[in-house]
Amino acid sequence: MTATGSPLPVPAGLVEAFRAYEQALMSNDLAALDRLFAPGPTTLRGDANGLLVGHDMISAFRGGRGGAPPRRIVQTHVQTIDDDHALVVAVTELERGGRGQQTQLWARLADGWAVTAAHVSVPAPALDTRIWRVVGDPLVPATGCGVLDGESVAVKDLYAVAGHRVGAGNPAWLAAAPVETESAAVVDRLLDAGADVRGIARTDEFAYSLAGTNARSGAPPNPRAPYRMSGGSTSGSASAVSLGQATIGLGTDTGGSIRVPAAYQGLYGIRTTHDLVDTSGLLALAPTFDAVGWLTRSAELLRRVGEVLLPPGGTTTAGRRLVGVPALTALADPDVAAAVRTLPVEPGPDWPLGELPTWLAAFQTWQAWEAWQVRGEWLTGRLDTLGPDVRGRFENAATIGDEQAAAARATVVAARDRIRELVGDDVLVLPSASSVAPRLGADLGPVRTATMTLTCLAGLGGLPAVSIPLTATSGLPCGVSLLAAPGRDQDLLELAT
Amino acid sequence: MTATGSPLPVPAGLVEAFRAYEQALMSNDLAALDRLFAPGPTTLRGDANGLLVGHDMISAFRGGRGGAPPRRIVQTHVQTIDDDHALVVAVTELERGGRGQQTQLWARLADGWAVTAAHVSVPAPALDTRIWRVVGDPLVPATGCGVLDGESVAVKDLYAVAGHRVGAGNPAWLAAAPVETESAAVVDRLLDAGADVRGIARTDEFAYSLAGTNARSGAPPNPRAPYRMSGGSTSGSASAVSLGQATIGLGTDTGGSIRVPAAYQGLYGIRTTHDLVDTSGLLALAPTFDAVGWLTRSAELLRRVGEVLLPPGGTTTAGRRLVGVPALTALADPDVAAAVRTLPVEPGPDWPLGELPTWLAAFQTWQAWEAWQVRGEWLTGRLDTLGPDVRGRFENAATIGDEQAAAARATVVAARDRIRELVGDDVLVLPSASSVAPRLGADLGPVRTATMTLTCLAGLGGLPAVSIPLTATSGLPCGVSLLAAPGRDQDLLELAT
Repeated sequence: MTATGSPLPVPAGLVEAFRAYEQALMSNDLAALDRLFAPGPTTLRGDANGLLVGHDMISAFRGGRGGAPPRRIVQTHVQTIDDDHALVVAVTELERGGRGQQTQLWARLADGWAVTAAHVSVPAPALDTRIWRVVGDPLVPATGCGVLDGESVAVKDLYAVAGHRVGAGNPAWLAAAPVETESAAVVDRLLDAGADVRGIARTDEFAYSLAGTNARSGAPPNPRAPYRMSGGSTSGSASAVSLGQATIGLGTDTGGSIRVPAAYQGLYGIRTTHDLVDTSGLLALAPTFDAVGWLTRSAELLRRVGEVLLPPGGTTTAGRRLVGVPALTALADPDVAAAVRTLPVEPGPDWPLGELPTWLAAFQTWQAWEAWQVRGEWLTGRLDTLGPDVRGRFENAATIGDEQAAAARATVVAARDRIRELVGDDVLVLPSASSVAPRLGADLGPVRTATMTLTCLAGLGGLPAVSIPLTATSGLPCGVSLLAAPGRDQDLLELAT
Repeated sequence: MTATGSPLPVPAGLVEAFRAYEQALMSNDLAALDRLFAPGPTTLRGDANGLLVGHDMISAFRGGRGGAPPRRIVQTHVQTIDDDHALVVAVTELERGGRGQQTQLWARLADGWAVTAAHVSVPAPALDTRIWRVVGDPLVPATGCGVLDGESVAVKDLYAVAGHRVGAGNPAWLAAAPVETESAAVVDRLLDAGADVRGIARTDEFAYSLAGTNARSGAPPNPRAPYRMSGGSTSGSASAVSLGQATIGLGTDTGGSIRVPAAYQGLYGIRTTHDLVDTSGLLALAPTFDAVGWLTRSAELLRRVGEVLLPPGGTTTAGRRLVGVPALTALADPDVAAAVRTLPVEPGPDWPLGELPTWLAAFQTWQAWEAWQVRGEWLTGRLDTLGPDVRGRFENAATIGDEQAAAARATVVAARDRIRELVGDDVLVLPSASSVAPRLGADLGPVRTATMTLTCLAGLGGLPAVSIPLTATSGLPCGVSLLAAPGRDQDLLELAT
């Protein structure tokens, strides 16, 4: 290693430290790696998954990743700044193929040389399998021209795409699935309006999760909130849109599967009025609550997709009064609630808050019962093909008796009428999710309950909901939802724009 | 921008320089960007396409790329080293979506602050459309188990893949192509032996080029030789293998389309004996010369694929004497010839060197005539759908009369017999291509003639050729080919291993 970057020689001991680091990296010697990264809150390490700030975050990341990909150094350039500081830029050649780059600022500290900042690049895979199952340039070209010319769609792996199978986020289902001869109705409409299909995006298994942590394909990245959950179950479509790999994320929302990823990733999203948009070619989760939805990076495009997928002449003369229910907003974490409170709202009617846990329980019971009606036969004997979370939900679903289901159904019907009455002609403003995106690996139990208490209201009411991105005090994305009476989807899209 | 990386304050003037740089980048003000990058041969700039060393290379790169993607800075961290040096790490948010990172070492020079090293990362696209037309996880799963379990294939877009169209590197052809109901014979064999199809890889249009610079989809990257040609026409398959996005690159070799990318990218490659491997489901270029071939990163895997695609019991007891013909080696550039001369060879028979230009002319004439026979009807009226290079070749092909073709054919037949006689039972060692990978944008004329004088020998003889990677004195990859009598493919694969 010679100092090509400066007339100054390479400082004493740096070469040895650089070699020691490389050796520790290849043997995943975490103690040595921690020692060779400067202590304190300002040490930096960045790669394609985001920038880690502070020695502790970097150390935790290393502890979790199980080692770096095998590589060798093929070029090294040193820019010596002084006896105690040098930049080392290395070109790496990965054992699996391709070249990467590693840029490190080294400083001589009290107990030797350490990296104060590192920037690491490795070659991208053929496709990010956390986000996509298949992608093309395009996968399916537009069949017409229209308001979506030049747009590209990430199709959630629950919708039929002609010539491909529906995978539903589960490898066993995919393996047994037939090649579809026709695309889902909404896919055809998007293609006719000028959009290409970019690819088929990952979903939580059978859409039965809000986390976006598919046990097989992994958690799609959340670029606005690195190392945090993408949100689900429309997880791959949401990440694809966040990353600019597609402009429209087609998905579904049964209990929040559009609104939660929209909130976690800072996107616009709509859950349409139940039964307003044709669901033919869509694999059901819970037909009473399932609704078509989509995600975009702009309110304008969200509205334009509505022109294509919603029935014409949808805007109404009904009231556009924004009302808030403080007690509902207060169900969210303080930082999210604070962001939601920045919207100017008028006080809405009092909600029967005591009913909410009952409503949520009925929603979850009836959802589970329906989910077992549509998937139980296939899943019987195949539950072990599921990841633990989704498996737990289906195992519980299998235990729900008809009486328990009927009771839940009665509560669902009563709740629907009550919720529609409470919303009336107003536009209800409430958090899209109760929190910012949880860290990957965090326990979702409490978050899930608080979030679903909010999201199940649109599900129970069969109401349209548009999620608008906000920023929490932490700087992380969160979302606010606008709910209105059934059929007012276009009113909400106008409001969001 | 505050000094989060150090107790030291941000040096005077750095913030202004950083802002000036960002402004110059967004307005693509090349003069300002040149000024804000340190002069001299040691300034560094790296991104996913490779590391540029020296102000001039960086300046040339900037002049050619037409600006950086629109972005904004969302986070900045400064590590101040002294009054004249600081590292600035910025997190960028791209207008098209996703976040990137920029790491810059700034130094205060005589005439102000300048970047001495920069490392830039931006989010990867859904797929690298220079390499792939469609990819999946996998695109087509293995249909059996065998010696290729766990391997993944990049299929050149000339082979039928059931459920997909054949694009042949030309959008108009793709648009008119039917969905294939059966895969090509070799694709089925690879699937039966345990390999997945990762995707369909780019090719030069109708395989009629050795450059790998498809006018529509662009030049696939060459990781071992940044900003240089990938080689073609098996260009996408080769880059996919180099990058580790697939382990097997399936392609074809008519006049060097396997051997040239193998040499340019430092891969192993085989062109099989003409007519030895089933070409059903392969779109022809020039049937007299077309041969199945494949590329890998190891000789061992190259051989294993041979076990699947070549007829059994292929190794022979014929001689394995490596012979060289100094005058043939001397057709290559000095650095490539020097690398080839490192192989221990015995002197071979004298070749009729005066004949080589005649043989090449006959090869090219007959190739062109056949190419027009198979594509002329479709291309008539569609020549303007081709890129300039390939279009020129087909336009010339259209002018070749039957008499001229017949004369070329006679020379081809005579050359085949003579070449087989000269090779005999020996293994002929010669350069796979006459040069290392030319820079993108370079004039290929002279290189093409020198390379094809070498590569057409296997084409004319219908001989198998295995290309083995070497490194030229420049450090860039080059290749040496082993040629033998027809049917000795497995002998060559053994020799390479």
